[in-house]
Amino acid sequence: MPRVVVHVMPKPEILDPQGKAVAAALPRLGFEGIASVRQGKRFELELEGPADEAAIARLREAAETLLSNPVIEDVVDIEVLGEGA
Amino acid sequence: MPRVVVHVMPKPEILDPQGKAVAAALPRLGFEGIASVRQGKRFELELEGPADEAAIARLREAAETLLSNPVIEDVVDIEVLGEGA
Repeated sequence: MPRVVVHVMPKPEILDPQGKAVAAALPRLGFEGIASVRQGKRFELELEGPADEAAIARLREAAETLLSNPVIEDVVDIEVLGEGA
Repeated sequence: MPRVVVHVMPKPEILDPQGKAVAAALPRLGFEGIASVRQGKRFELELEGPADEAAIARLREAAETLLSNPVIEDVVDIEVLGEGA
């Protein structure tokens, strides 16, 4: 079955408390040299049918309404990984 | 500054309740044809220095200890996006 990855990130103008917490924790744990961190989401979906244009268009709609909150998040990428196992 | 993306997913043998919830919600909202969903995390980091081999090795260690929980999650990819704005 074709696998698709949907990448969702907080919009640039939105404060990202999870990312800020990670960025603050890194130097405390000995990892220096990281200027900023933003945390988003990655969804891996398996499609029942082929990953054709119509399926990806429907998936984009689902990604923009259900997988992300369009007020605070952007769907930054939809990546078709091809046929899975 | 170079930007790096760290991709984290729940291990295949781990039940993923967030992904299951999304997969169950999709058909209720009219999106059919999606067999399974797994939800992971995507981190975008900005490095202060160059994204050389040593920096990426340190970052991989941080990703495997702080950005992911190694008991239940895998770092599936570390992607160097090159120089940001």
